[in-house]
Amino acid sequence: MSVTAAQGFRAAGIAAGIKKSGRTDLALVVNDGPRSEAAGVFTRNKVKAAPVLWSQQVLTTGALRAVVLNSGGANACTGPQGFQTAHATAERVAEVLGCGAVEVAACSTGLIGEQLPRETLLSGAEKAAGGLAATPEAGAAVAAAIMTTDTVPKQAQVIDPAGWTVGGTAKGAGMISPSMATMLGVITTDAVVDQPMLDAALREAVRYSFDRLDIDGSMSTNDTVLVLSSGASGVRADPAVFTAALTRVCRDLAEQMQADAEGVTKRITVRVTGAASEDDAVTVARTIARDALVKTAMFGSDPNWGRVAAAAGYADAALDPERLDVTINGVLLCKGAVVAGDRAACDLSGKDVMIEVELGLSGGADGHTAEIRTTDLSHAYVEENSAYSS
Amino acid sequence: MSVTAAQGFRAAGIAAGIKKSGRTDLALVVNDGPRSEAAGVFTRNKVKAAPVLWSQQVLTTGALRAVVLNSGGANACTGPQGFQTAHATAERVAEVLGCGAVEVAACSTGLIGEQLPRETLLSGAEKAAGGLAATPEAGAAVAAAIMTTDTVPKQAQVIDPAGWTVGGTAKGAGMISPSMATMLGVITTDAVVDQPMLDAALREAVRYSFDRLDIDGSMSTNDTVLVLSSGASGVRADPAVFTAALTRVCRDLAEQMQADAEGVTKRITVRVTGAASEDDAVTVARTIARDALVKTAMFGSDPNWGRVAAAAGYADAALDPERLDVTINGVLLCKGAVVAGDRAACDLSGKDVMIEVELGLSGGADGHTAEIRTTDLSHAYVEENSAYSS
Repeated sequence: MSVTAAQGFRAAGIAAGIKKSGRTDLALVVNDGPRSEAAGVFTRNKVKAAPVLWSQQVLTTGALRAVVLNSGGANACTGPQGFQTAHATAERVAEVLGCGAVEVAACSTGLIGEQLPRETLLSGAEKAAGGLAATPEAGAAVAAAIMTTDTVPKQAQVIDPAGWTVGGTAKGAGMISPSMATMLGVITTDAVVDQPMLDAALREAVRYSFDRLDIDGSMSTNDTVLVLSSGASGVRADPAVFTAALTRVCRDLAEQMQADAEGVTKRITVRVTGAASEDDAVTVARTIARDALVKTAMFGSDPNWGRVAAAAGYADAALDPERLDVTINGVLLCKGAVVAGDRAACDLSGKDVMIEVELGLSGGADGHTAEIRTTDLSHAYVEENSAYSS
Repeated sequence: MSVTAAQGFRAAGIAAGIKKSGRTDLALVVNDGPRSEAAGVFTRNKVKAAPVLWSQQVLTTGALRAVVLNSGGANACTGPQGFQTAHATAERVAEVLGCGAVEVAACSTGLIGEQLPRETLLSGAEKAAGGLAATPEAGAAVAAAIMTTDTVPKQAQVIDPAGWTVGGTAKGAGMISPSMATMLGVITTDAVVDQPMLDAALREAVRYSFDRLDIDGSMSTNDTVLVLSSGASGVRADPAVFTAALTRVCRDLAEQMQADAEGVTKRITVRVTGAASEDDAVTVARTIARDALVKTAMFGSDPNWGRVAAAAGYADAALDPERLDVTINGVLLCKGAVVAGDRAACDLSGKDVMIEVELGLSGGADGHTAEIRTTDLSHAYVEENSAYSS
């Protein structure tokens, strides 16, 4: 599993002392090659954390030897001092590994607006570099060290019969929205892939996984997903097969993030069909998934389809009320924007909710559909996000 | 106060029997003239309630004799049967008043997706028409009869020294967002105003009042604000003075709606200055006001400015992080997107919170600013919106 599933990678996750709790808070993933293609997708937030600025810069080369990650602080809104901290950390890792700082990406997660303790980070990075291993335990230690309000580590892998593997880990529990989550993700592969293909595959995979997860509509300053390829399997991957495998790993991680989102009591899938375009399908699904009244109704196990219809109606997308159908957990409740089935027949007592919205503007082979995954809005979400700074 | 403050208006609010609780649920406002100019602003939701469709149609004439309103059911997503109910209610009111149905607007509020009891509504309308009065008590009865989850009635008035009055009432507690609220509002005036001027004044007033209130980002199927002019004062109002008075009444009502919003423990004002345009200022302010993480932080009295900066950063507006300042309750916490002041100095223990965001992209006489009013996201909000259908 995780970042050490593919050949050619070593990893470590340690307690550097950033978190006052003493829990592990620093991770290192190293690509031993022979190849070093890499690609990344970053937050679209205009306020970007220092490690995002650093990693975007180094990734212009399309190659990485290592990624250093920390929890316990986002290193966002920290100015030049924060950028120097990210730079110095990458430099320290590079020194120990014998490569250039430009081959080392950095990721941070935690509270915005506080400086990271630079010396703690530097000595932690050195310690992690001294404890690298290619074992599943080392991969699991990375998954644990990047957790913030996550309650469980998240790992996934796909082994292709052709002889290559894709594995990865991610964290993310709140502030999860358009263009990914407050999420960090590191994915590794030993398939032989050229950099432009790796980049294209990652964009496609993120588009249909992390980008389709929307917990609370908030977009983080730190979102980062990186993919590193060692080529150690010696097997060249078919682009379509590789993209599908990478997408599966990303979707698996996104589903784990959904299940572990802050305060979740319901896992909700909003599926929109018959939209005028795929963008419209995503917009309508996302608008419903973000609607506070829909989310609180789901928390109350209330099949309040009127709130779903209202949210669809204010989405910035083509919609004809006379063709709007709403089905919740298999029960058609609204046909042509008019009350249809019996609310009482709709059972929302379980943990999974499927909201299906048919727009009736396309269909068959030309039908435009999209699914957005979200969660309910519960007392626990409010508690977790109000009781302390995060 | 309220809809009977201006001369030429009579009103009634009664218990028609729509609400099972026996509380008042039907209101009638009648314009006795001599003039009958009217204007309306309606929800931009593509899924519109039957009374919205009806009222938009009758208002194409620019004149109204009466408005009939009910709580206890939105008459939304009710199809042709629901539209016939709205039509029949207007017709019954018109019969009693001796005018045409086309001179009677209708407004409804309550649960989406259930048919209103037509006969109950018709006999209620008749009963209300029989009990019309021009007293303050009659105006207050209208304010009470349109309440849903509101805990207090909302009324406002402005008396102009020139001899005319603007008065009104509104309801709205949740589902309050872009393009007004799940709100109904009826405003009356005895100023002499031509219809195009009345229409322009209402649009301007709504733009700077109800449209700048955003409780939960949800846009209702039923939002309606109507203004009726009797001209009974005989005094022709100056357009600018009239627009200012109407705006004051609307802002007063919007502030009452904010204070009474579902589950509110904090009244939050987000003020954005120095934006590249007024639209940008509104977009940034609205994005911050809608951010679930900002709202939960405020509920927790936590001056978590990092969440404010992050929300500003993902707003669809021009932003340069190096010019982004965040001030909360007078304490500058973030300068140029970098930590500045001391969180501990920022006192959020009171009920009012002012979040100021300077974008530094315009200034002085050419500065673009906007204020959005919102509330925190509390346990009570979750409770009120999950415990029962509304």
